[in-house]
Amino acid sequence: MFRNKLAQIVNHKAFQATVITLILINAILVGVETYQNIYESNKAFFFYADQILLWLFTIEIAMRLFATSLPSFFKKGWNWFDITIVLTGHLFTGGHFVTVLRVLRVLRVLRAISVIPSLRKLVDALVMTIPSLANILVLMSIFLYIFAVIGTMLFNEVSPEYFGNLQRTILTLFQIVTLDSWSSDIMRPLMAYNEWIWIYFVSFVLIGTFIIFNLFIGVIVNNVEKTNDNEEDLNDSKPVTKRELAKVEAQLDEIKRLLNNQEKTPY
Amino acid sequence: MFRNKLAQIVNHKAFQATVITLILINAILVGVETYQNIYESNKAFFFYADQILLWLFTIEIAMRLFATSLPSFFKKGWNWFDITIVLTGHLFTGGHFVTVLRVLRVLRVLRAISVIPSLRKLVDALVMTIPSLANILVLMSIFLYIFAVIGTMLFNEVSPEYFGNLQRTILTLFQIVTLDSWSSDIMRPLMAYNEWIWIYFVSFVLIGTFIIFNLFIGVIVNNVEKTNDNEEDLNDSKPVTKRELAKVEAQLDEIKRLLNNQEKTPY
Amino acid sequence: MFRNKLAQIVNHKAFQATVITLILINAILVGVETYQNIYESNKAFFFYADQILLWLFTIEIAMRLFATSLPSFFKKGWNWFDITIVLTGHLFTGGHFVTVLRVLRVLRVLRAISVIPSLRKLVDALVMTIPSLANILVLMSIFLYIFAVIGTMLFNEVSPEYFGNLQRTILTLFQIVTLDSWSSDIMRPLMAYNEWIWIYFVSFVLIGTFIIFNLFIGVIVNNVEKTNDNEEDLNDSKPVTKRELAKVEAQLDEIKRLLNNQEKTPY
Amino acid sequence: MFRNKLAQIVNHKAFQATVITLILINAILVGVETYQNIYESNKAFFFYADQILLWLFTIEIAMRLFATSLPSFFKKGWNWFDITIVLTGHLFTGGHFVTVLRVLRVLRVLRAISVIPSLRKLVDALVMTIPSLANILVLMSIFLYIFAVIGTMLFNEVSPEYFGNLQRTILTLFQIVTLDSWSSDIMRPLMAYNEWIWIYFVSFVLIGTFIIFNLFIGVIVNNVEKTNDNEEDLNDSKPVTKRELAKVEAQLDEIKRLLNNQEKTPY
Repeated sequence: MFRNKLAQIVNHKAFQATVITLILINAILVGVETYQNIYESNKAFFFYADQILLWLFTIEIAMRLFATSLPSFFKKGWNWFDITIVLTGHLFTGGHFVTVLRVLRVLRVLRAISVIPSLRKLVDALVMTIPSLANILVLMSIFLYIFAVIGTMLFNEVSPEYFGNLQRTILTLFQIVTLDSWSSDIMRPLMAYNEWIWIYFVSFVLIGTFIIFNLFIGVIVNNVEKTNDNEEDLNDSKPVTKRELAKVEAQLDEIKRLLNNQEKTPY
Repeated sequence: MFRNKLAQIVNHKAFQATVITLILINAILVGVETYQNIYESNKAFFFYADQILLWLFTIEIAMRLFATSLPSFFKKGWNWFDITIVLTGHLFTGGHFVTVLRVLRVLRVLRAISVIPSLRKLVDALVMTIPSLANILVLMSIFLYIFAVIGTMLFNEVSPEYFGNLQRTILTLFQIVTLDSWSSDIMRPLMAYNEWIWIYFVSFVLIGTFIIFNLFIGVIVNNVEKTNDNEEDLNDSKPVTKRELAKVEAQLDEIKRLLNNQEKTPY
Repeated sequence: MFRNKLAQIVNHKAFQATVITLILINAILVGVETYQNIYESNKAFFFYADQILLWLFTIEIAMRLFATSLPSFFKKGWNWFDITIVLTGHLFTGGHFVTVLRVLRVLRVLRAISVIPSLRKLVDALVMTIPSLANILVLMSIFLYIFAVIGTMLFNEVSPEYFGNLQRTILTLFQIVTLDSWSSDIMRPLMAYNEWIWIYFVSFVLIGTFIIFNLFIGVIVNNVEKTNDNEEDLNDSKPVTKRELAKVEAQLDEIKRLLNNQEKTPY
Repeated sequence: MFRNKLAQIVNHKAFQATVITLILINAILVGVETYQNIYESNKAFFFYADQILLWLFTIEIAMRLFATSLPSFFKKGWNWFDITIVLTGHLFTGGHFVTVLRVLRVLRVLRAISVIPSLRKLVDALVMTIPSLANILVLMSIFLYIFAVIGTMLFNEVSPEYFGNLQRTILTLFQIVTLDSWSSDIMRPLMAYNEWIWIYFVSFVLIGTFIIFNLFIGVIVNNVEKTNDNEEDLNDSKPVTKRELAKVEAQLDEIKRLLNNQEKTPY
């Protein structure tokens, strides 16, 4: 009884609207807090407002938790996400990690996604495309790693800023793949030492952009197919397939057999 | 009677051609005006030419207004656009906001879109794709806001030029998402303070470009579907659907039933 | 007779191979000429080699001209292209416009496109997509022009290098649309004068990339459709359409009518 | 017998897992080696670890070689790739080309692709798309070459860094096509000498990006088609084609003929 009543409240439109409003207030508060002078003169207000919001979110999640059976509640990834966001907020309150706490407060804005169904679906769809791209991401990583090791080997003494160690080289290669100043800032100064190093950069740009480009095409083809499949599954207005035509042909054969029998049998 | 005659004039080819010519003259005038020396020595000419054009446009819109019934005239968004452009021109004439007035005169060139039907349709089509992308734009805004608040929080003292306050950070993040000098100008100078800040930038570049990329795919899939739908609706050369095949099968069943009856009934 | 024999020669494989070889030699010559020291010590050789090539090309085109009837020869755009390239070569020889002559010699390499059929088809296909994009190009021009006039008006005194006059502003806007240093070099220095000018740049980047993006989608959708059409026209393995199913249904109706007649008519 | 047993071992899951582990160890080793201080103090360890890995890879390939018949082994390109990688490792060991040897050791990580089937297929698919793009690549090369010769001709004295000779100009044009600092670093400084050189750069950017864009579309259309074809070939749920409908119509004609015969023949 209690659970049913709670479920009624939780699923009510006004409840959702209230939660979204609270998230909006949270978003505005963390935004205003970035203005140093406003924050300094209202420190107490921001602290208590945040505490109230945190407890309101805690109550909201507790209500949603008791409104559904525990197993089904914990099956949904988004509920885990909500709980983590709120729990870590409680854990770090009053602690020494002020920056961590402030970042967590900002991340609570992400709850807008878990609360608004259409956004939740969108993010689910975006995340769902990632596994189908696993292969191409592994391939990209292999090439990135090989170029990173070779780059560090060849240039770590000449250009320590960009190729000083493996981590830096990977970051530099990431920058190169986004095509930001890859030639003007990174390749051309190095060409003063050796004319031939363009081979390294040009081949990485070609391979990198080609793989990324194919990654993008993978996502496009994926999406187009999914859309087509959805369309076809939802209504039965999809084109007739061979399998179905076979049934028609079987019927026609039967009809012919019947007709042939008629002709053969004397009346 | 008067309205019919007016409608005849307004819909005549020559009327349209005249309006387009006026818009072209307006475009050339505002272009020539940007050359300081020409403008200074012909100030009076430019002023009167502009006044004449403004009144000609006013007359044109008045004619179009009286040629149609008022309700149907004000239903079309493009008519509102035309009226606004011309009315604001009258309002600011002789006022002190010279720059505003000049910008308005330039914006009159936009009327080329509302006057040429094929351009109007194109812009309508472009604008129409925006609502279907509302969700992904909201998602983008949420991530932009979260990264903006965190960025201002972390870097506002180290790099006031790029992260001094929330507005500036949002502008910087927009620049990062266009990949313009995101690493060479923004990230690398900041890395002198802390090696780990690449996490902030790389994750924003990855999430930002991924979302924008999906926005683009959304538009593509949208357009491809729309084209397909248009094609299918216009002619009846679309593939046969299951629903239609069912009719054929029903007829075959009936034929078989008829044939079976024949066999059973003695002749 | 003479024409037939000439046509046989002109269409022979060896003839084409020879012409392609000549074009390759031409390409290598103009490439080697760019090396100042080699050119200076072999001026005479380069001059005579070029004259021989020019006359060989002239003979080739003359042969192709006489091998076909004049009207059909001049109907093809590519023949005009060939004639222009060779004729202008003759016209400028010995004249004072050395640079023009040298550029023309380089442009002769373009004849590789007109001689190799698969390249010719490809370029034809690429050029053919342009008219279908006319509308969106006009729209782009309108926005470019409006932003150029406004930009020159607002910034020609503050940043004469980028916005000094209408031509320069158009070039700057082209640079902005390619996203090259649009913020780091162009917008940020200007923001020192007025915080709000980001509105101009951000709106241009958004509108510009959105239109270009739709231009690209237009080409994609165009190409996909064309491919589909080609596929469907070439073989008859396209899906059955409603129109064709109607025929089947008509036949079934006739069969039923026949059967019904049999039942009704007494034997 | 021996071969069968060997084939059993080679195709066993554990064998594959071992090889992948060895490749991973190889990858980690070459990565750690880039840290100068770790490498210097463990030179002997790295040398022997590398020798052991090289011999293990040699044994692995020998086993795979003897497990299959020689002709079928050498038909597969990937086997040639594996043999080359390992053989060159043996050839350069102890030689003077230390850098070459180290690069070869890094390239062994590429064997991950030849060992993991799904990656092998992916790379095969990516490479397979290249021939279908041959035409457009030739076209790109022609334009690149023409612009390179003209660019060297016009600017080699004004800007020797970017246009000093043909090779450098080609590299510069490659940079321009990636849109990296094409205007800010390359075109604008040159415009100090001649206002009109923007024609060269803008036309190259337009032609270059247009061709590359069509190259990309070629890959997309290619992939979409291939996916469609695969789908249609794998299952028989593809739309009914005209050819198949013709069979149905032939059967219907036969049925009608039978029925007509019945009517005509007296019973």
